[in-house]
Amino acid sequence: MRLLILNAGSSSLKFGVFSAGDNTREVFKGSYERFRNGGCEYRFRHGETHERGAAAFASPSDALKGVPDALKRFDLDSIDAIGHRIVHGGASFSAPTLLDDETIEAIAVLTPLAPLHNPANLEAVRLCRGLWPDVPQIAVFDTAFHLTNPAFATTYAVPERWRAAGLRRYGFHGTSHKYVAHRAAEEVGRPLSDLQLVSIHLGNGASVCAVNRGQSMDSSMGMTPLEGLVMGTRSGDVDPGAFGFLARELGLSVQEIEDALYDESGLKGLAGSSDMRDIEDSAAKGDLLAQLAIEIYAYRARKYVGAYAAAMGGLDAVVFTGGIGENSPSMRRRICDGLDFMGLQLDHDRNMAVKLSGPAAPQIQAYGSRVRVFVTETAEQLMIARETAATLTAARPTRLLRLPIAVSGRHVHLSRAAVDALFGKDYVLDQATPLRQPGHWCAKERVTLVGPKGKLASVAILGPLRERTQIEISRTDSFALGIDVPVRDSGKLEGTPQVTITGPAGSFTTEGLIIAARHIHVNPADAARLGVEDGDYVGIRVGDEDRGLTFGRTLVRVGADAFTEVHIDTDEANAAGIEVAGTGELVHI
Amino acid sequence: MRLLILNAGSSSLKFGVFSAGDNTREVFKGSYERFRNGGCEYRFRHGETHERGAAAFASPSDALKGVPDALKRFDLDSIDAIGHRIVHGGASFSAPTLLDDETIEAIAVLTPLAPLHNPANLEAVRLCRGLWPDVPQIAVFDTAFHLTNPAFATTYAVPERWRAAGLRRYGFHGTSHKYVAHRAAEEVGRPLSDLQLVSIHLGNGASVCAVNRGQSMDSSMGMTPLEGLVMGTRSGDVDPGAFGFLARELGLSVQEIEDALYDESGLKGLAGSSDMRDIEDSAAKGDLLAQLAIEIYAYRARKYVGAYAAAMGGLDAVVFTGGIGENSPSMRRRICDGLDFMGLQLDHDRNMAVKLSGPAAPQIQAYGSRVRVFVTETAEQLMIARETAATLTAARPTRLLRLPIAVSGRHVHLSRAAVDALFGKDYVLDQATPLRQPGHWCAKERVTLVGPKGKLASVAILGPLRERTQIEISRTDSFALGIDVPVRDSGKLEGTPQVTITGPAGSFTTEGLIIAARHIHVNPADAARLGVEDGDYVGIRVGDEDRGLTFGRTLVRVGADAFTEVHIDTDEANAAGIEVAGTGELVHI
Repeated sequence: MRLLILNAGSSSLKFGVFSAGDNTREVFKGSYERFRNGGCEYRFRHGETHERGAAAFASPSDALKGVPDALKRFDLDSIDAIGHRIVHGGASFSAPTLLDDETIEAIAVLTPLAPLHNPANLEAVRLCRGLWPDVPQIAVFDTAFHLTNPAFATTYAVPERWRAAGLRRYGFHGTSHKYVAHRAAEEVGRPLSDLQLVSIHLGNGASVCAVNRGQSMDSSMGMTPLEGLVMGTRSGDVDPGAFGFLARELGLSVQEIEDALYDESGLKGLAGSSDMRDIEDSAAKGDLLAQLAIEIYAYRARKYVGAYAAAMGGLDAVVFTGGIGENSPSMRRRICDGLDFMGLQLDHDRNMAVKLSGPAAPQIQAYGSRVRVFVTETAEQLMIARETAATLTAARPTRLLRLPIAVSGRHVHLSRAAVDALFGKDYVLDQATPLRQPGHWCAKERVTLVGPKGKLASVAILGPLRERTQIEISRTDSFALGIDVPVRDSGKLEGTPQVTITGPAGSFTTEGLIIAARHIHVNPADAARLGVEDGDYVGIRVGDEDRGLTFGRTLVRVGADAFTEVHIDTDEANAAGIEVAGTGELVHI
Repeated sequence: MRLLILNAGSSSLKFGVFSAGDNTREVFKGSYERFRNGGCEYRFRHGETHERGAAAFASPSDALKGVPDALKRFDLDSIDAIGHRIVHGGASFSAPTLLDDETIEAIAVLTPLAPLHNPANLEAVRLCRGLWPDVPQIAVFDTAFHLTNPAFATTYAVPERWRAAGLRRYGFHGTSHKYVAHRAAEEVGRPLSDLQLVSIHLGNGASVCAVNRGQSMDSSMGMTPLEGLVMGTRSGDVDPGAFGFLARELGLSVQEIEDALYDESGLKGLAGSSDMRDIEDSAAKGDLLAQLAIEIYAYRARKYVGAYAAAMGGLDAVVFTGGIGENSPSMRRRICDGLDFMGLQLDHDRNMAVKLSGPAAPQIQAYGSRVRVFVTETAEQLMIARETAATLTAARPTRLLRLPIAVSGRHVHLSRAAVDALFGKDYVLDQATPLRQPGHWCAKERVTLVGPKGKLASVAILGPLRERTQIEISRTDSFALGIDVPVRDSGKLEGTPQVTITGPAGSFTTEGLIIAARHIHVNPADAARLGVEDGDYVGIRVGDEDRGLTFGRTLVRVGADAFTEVHIDTDEANAAGIEVAGTGELVHI
């Protein structure tokens, strides 16, 4: 399958042709940029052939007309699909999407969120539909990777009417962060879902992303690509009080301030150049403004590394990418030096010796550093090609089998030590009520949970006893206790909060407090019929088309004797209008 | 000495009478607040006497007229000085200042930086000058503590013309952060200058401050008190792109947006109430907006803890203060839980058992937690009283003695191991040039320093050999190497960056790279004449009134045989126009 991948920005048009399959790879790379006086520069690369020169295109959209000729000249004019980078997908587009009249309109509606970027992207889509009317076109969104960010990371503390109008954090560079996070996990040799990563993309635009156990949790860019780090010409974080000051003191309009924050700020505003190489050279010669610009740039990035490690509650690896991240050992060192206190230490020789090529991702942490540090080239076009191919070949969601749903109220699984502390040495719990999972029971005894805000009394004990005590509550319960409780799969208890359990004989304080992630118990026979394997994620559709909802990302747990059923908690049951039990349909996602 | 301390805000007037001396203490406390319909409420406390009721004052400045009567009624009408809390001191006021026509005018000029706060503060000053024309009045600034923040923390990445107009970060709550940081250091039992602290003030306004080795390094509030944490009614951090979005989509003006960010945002905007106690109760009952508000509030604070630990390169203690910081064990826990990876672990029982009274500052970290966690009541009024008293009794700066100034070029002090590695086993350096400090010399041999950006060749070696290798360079040199180098006193090498030194026999990589803080070597006889002691900080005035400058915060090091002279580095010498040596005058600061 041959794919054309297009990245149409406001100041350049980049494109590539990919051969998609088991090993998707780029066969052609082209760009039109530096538009001025009705002309521009182009570069083509096809195998060992490199071409560059001037072309008579006045703008990126104008240059799109040159693409068919370029492809024809290199014998690449038969293409099977086109993948477009679209900057802003808003809250609606969480995955690559086939571009038809409806989705194009839905993207156009998002223009107020990305007034500079989305119109340029969409103009390319429209032109391509004219040029290749029969070729399917796929949108891959810069924001999609971050749609897993929790509400507490995406919500600004502003009036409700503004939030209703769409003011929230989205995050960008998603394709890049996703790619380099996966590359780092491959190099670590552990699943991304086990790791806590900070991805640092330092290009002309720049952002940091917290990738927590496989999902983007937070990103330094917000509703727009203006928030966060210092960039080439963009300011990054600025006091919201600055607008009033500039309006009153300098008589500037919102538009004038915004234009300057996008185009005359960042490194350019600080040091007169947006090119870090120039700035590093000037700084070494004693230019005080260049020195300050470097310090600010590094300081902001460094603070985000600390902030995101704190946000995730740990840090396994940092990944540098983007032009500056890939090429400035000095900037990498400024960002990482002094973070020994959180287990991060660079090896300065490895840092200086980094040579990147293709997917290479060298590690530059010191021997004994608990946190690993990677440097790797980002490959946004390749990722867009892969996602475009996957979208074209993916099966449409299919409803399969109706499954029973059980609602889990708050409960605890106790260890022997916990039972001894709560009920007395060698106490034997009364296995009053058998549960549907064979060998499992609910005890007659109850316990109380105690937190800084309040207590939860009469909490059920489920057996049999376990090696480690685990306490499962709902999100609402977590506020009654006053403890910030993470959503976790059963048994994944590293770094979970402590809680005190009290019983008739005493109290027991232990970690292991979680909101259990929804999951499906399934026996091997049912798993085969459902077409799922242990560790898969599926969706569960509850209710009818109009009033129903689909629970995404539900973990499949295959067990030899399992009674096949879906487990959700009381908050999820309330959301779905289920009282004690119900049924749902499995949806492949 | 009896002092009246006034905190005149835009919505309340708080005041206190203090008996100042060795143990400054509050003898009377009063407030006028909840102004509506031409009236307000007042509260007075004098010893065991508590009074509250309604008064016919329409505004805080109107209520100021009630203060003399209130003082008279409690027999406190003879006062020796008045201390005013002034919110914004801009870049000019780094210390408490006597209020005269000139300083009042200088504060008035700063109004654009704090349009809500400074006019209210100044109106109180003017009224007090009318009511007590013969009583000296002192301004204590909320911003002053943060004027030690380095430029890389205070500079926004915006166009130069905006920075020239005054757009920079200042930080507020300085009096509170300074007080609680000192309280924490007292409890730790180590000098504040040895500690890395994060101070978290969570009141109706809220801010976090990084107190690095005794000095404020960064603060979450910026140019205005709008930036940073979520507050009662203020938004804290918001994407600067939000203004354009709100102007274009909702047709709002800058003033409308700013007003809503000050008064209708924060907890109020998220959950309808600005009172954390109400929100915590609603959340426990299942109110989803209240739950989200709590999560956002804690998440933002937690990220600042991580960011500031990374900024300082370490963390010894966290201090909670302000209404929410003092009274919500649940919020303290949400902020601290999961920070074990950086050595911070709460003791949940101690956290829940906190009972504050007076200067109590209980520790609530778990046994074995490397980072200590304190809770303490802030005492801004007391701090203002202390600083007011100190300002009145302080000697005016006096010029004392002309001192020789020596300029230190880049150099290294080597250990035996370093000499072995660089020049060969048991090599003896050629003590070519004696220095003015007795027993010290400069070797004939030279070494090269190597960093990720470049090299510094022919670096001098000063003897005698030391236990630990120490490398002293200038700020400009640090950019030539490409390493972020801290300013440190000689010998304070914990957590300093590594650098590679090369010599004829090999290379040696070691930590110990610093920009040496300027200092004065002085022998005991000269110290007595100068009126200084080991460890004091003084100023050094260089040049004449017009073109000269004063180096602040210069460390005094008394040594038995020392040749009395000031040591500065090449950047400082350039700034002062000194070539190789010069003289300066010691100024007590």
